[in-house]
Parts: sequence; C-alpha cells; structure tokens
Amino acid sequence: MAEAELQLVSRRIRSFPDFPIPGVLFRDISPVLKDPDAFRACISLLAGHLRETHGHSIDYIAGLDSRGFLFGPSLAQELGLGCLLIRKRGKLPGPTMSASYSLEYGKAELEIQKDALEPGQKVVIVDDLLATGGTMHAACELLGQLQAEVLECVCLVELTSLKGREKLGAVPFFSLLQYD
Amino acid sequence: MAEAELQLVSRRIRSFPDFPIPGVLFRDISPVLKDPDAFRACISLLAGHLRETHGHSIDYIAGLDSRGFLFGPSLAQELGLGCLLIRKRGKLPGPTMSASYSLEYGKAELEIQKDALEPGQKVVIVDDLLATGGTMHAACELLGQLQAEVLECVCLVELTSLKGREKLGAVPFFSLLQYD
Repeated sequence: MAEAELQLVSRRIRSFPDFPIPGVLFRDISPVLKDPDAFRACISLLAGHLRETHGHSIDYIAGLDSRGFLFGPSLAQELGLGCLLIRKRGKLPGPTMSASYSLEYGKAELEIQKDALEPGQKVVIVDDLLATGGTMHAACELLGQLQAEVLECVCLVELTSLKGREKLGAVPFFSLLQYD
Repeated sequence: MAEAELQLVSRRIRSFPDFPIPGVLFRDISPVLKDPDAFRACISLLAGHLRETHGHSIDYIAGLDSRGFLFGPSLAQELGLGCLLIRKRGKLPGPTMSASYSLEYGKAELEIQKDALEPGQKVVIVDDLLATGGTMHAACELLGQLQAEVLECVCLVELTSLKGREKLGAVPFFSLLQYD
C-alpha cells in the first residue's frame, strides 16, 4: 500500500468527541472530500486493493446510503464498473427487497431494487466507516436475498474496538484506516 | 453540448408513476449510476458546462444529501476541486449553520459545517433533480449565511412544470435533461 497516499487520507480525518451522543468519538471524513488530492488517493488505494484482490471478477460496486454514496460512484468509475444504490427504506421506486438492522433504539431497513442484479453477480460494498457492522451486515443480507455474491466490503475507516468485522462473518472486509 | 453523451444519460432515466405518493411521476436516476458510460457522460457534460461558464473561478462543488452525494465528488474531481457536504439536520459534527425548508408536511433543515468555507469563496451546488426547488433554495441560503457566493446550481434532471428554477431567483441554474 502506498504509504504517501495513505497519509494524504489519514491527515484529513478529524475527530469530534461526544457526537452524535456523549461518549462517542466521531470520525469526520468531510475533509477527505474537501481535499481533491486526499479524495483521489482514497479512491486510488481502494481501487488498487480491489484490483489486486479480485482482478476483473467484480460486476458492481454497491454504495450505502448516504455516505457510501460519496465513494461508490468514483470507486466504480476507477474500476470501469457501475454503481448500485442500497438505500434507506422508502427511497427507491419499483419492486424492492429489504433487510432490517438494529439501531440504538428500534430498527431501520435497507432496500435495493429487485432488478438491480442478476443471480450470481459479484459485488463489492463500500461505505465510509465500519462501526458495529450492523448496516454493512444488513447490506450483505440484502444482496444475498438477490442471490448475488458479496466478494468484499470496504470502508475508509474501521473502529476496531466495536468488532464490526466479526459481524460480517465469512465476508472479507478491508479498511484504509483503523482506530480503536 | 455533445448530443451523443446526452443520449447516453437520457436513455438511463426511468419513470415510475405514483411514487412516492399517488399522482407523482418519479424520475429514477439509478440506471445512470449502474451504467459506467452513462455516469461518465453525465459528469463530463456537467463539468464541460461549468468549465465553459466559470473557467477556473469555482472554489468548491457542494453536494446535497443524499443523491447529490452521488455526483458531487466525481464532478469535483473532474474539475480538480474539493467537494463540500450539505447534509440533513444532525449529521454533521462541530459548529454548523442551518437553513430550513418546507416539505409537504412540516419542515426540514439542511446543515453545513461553519468551517467548510471562507467568506467570498465561490461554490457550485449539485443535486440529482430539481423539483419545486425548496431544498436547493435552502442550500443557497445556507451558503449565503457563510458569505459564500453561489455561482450556479446544477442537476441532472429538471421537472420544469414545478418551476423550481424561479424559486432560485438570481442564482443561475443548469440541468442536463428537462421533463414536464
């Protein structure tokens, strides 16, 4: 991994204590988007990893609503692929599949359009950050319902102490930057 | 405007009647994202228009939460710029500015981080679609609060019968595709 590119990204992650609730240290990726060199480095590193790991076997990149949308289309373009949208409930028209996941209070649902994929197609899911892994796990389930194969999940940032990676089970996971 | 590129985009817009509520014809941009040639054409057309109109005077592209996030970073990269995030309420850490806008029932708020911009910087706002223009107008107000100059607002799709363009007042507006 290109150390210089990784530094361009890591110096643009800011930390805010007690957001959105007391006790949480929020990792803010906004400055990565604001710095064109950092954003280019981020996409280049993720694409490089995926090329090396999966060659030409990826059919689609899937971006998670809404911060995954910041990275999905650029990552897909870099790899010459299309980007699928996995959205929060009620946002996608036409027939959809849904998968629910737990929030701090209650549940939320992710949806994908039923015609987004053919059975057997291979997908990589991208989001900005992996915390407990609940959302990413639901996205994997959703793609499984459409009989797609999730080759890997990738994020910029991984909060390792929350063990989201374990929640993903056998699905490989890759992150550019890890924090406790 | 390159007619062939525009066709690549327009053939990937789908229409769904009665979504999200009866009487609304929903224009679905998902297939543009799924087709790498259509997405590249879309970014190239928007970037070409902005280069021609504003030369090198744009400081930032601002993407609107959440479908504007699908286009903002790629458009910014194409122009060698950074992308700012304008988000729904409660999503951004640190000091923020907010502007409210009307929904069918009640109100919603947009936010931006106070340190996103310096006074006088020049911004182009991007979203997927302009309908009544309420969200885009609020985004312009928000940037005005930070004393930024909104050079232009751009969208893939414009629903002309809803007259969102008028709501934007003196701020120039550009869309790739227009529907009644």
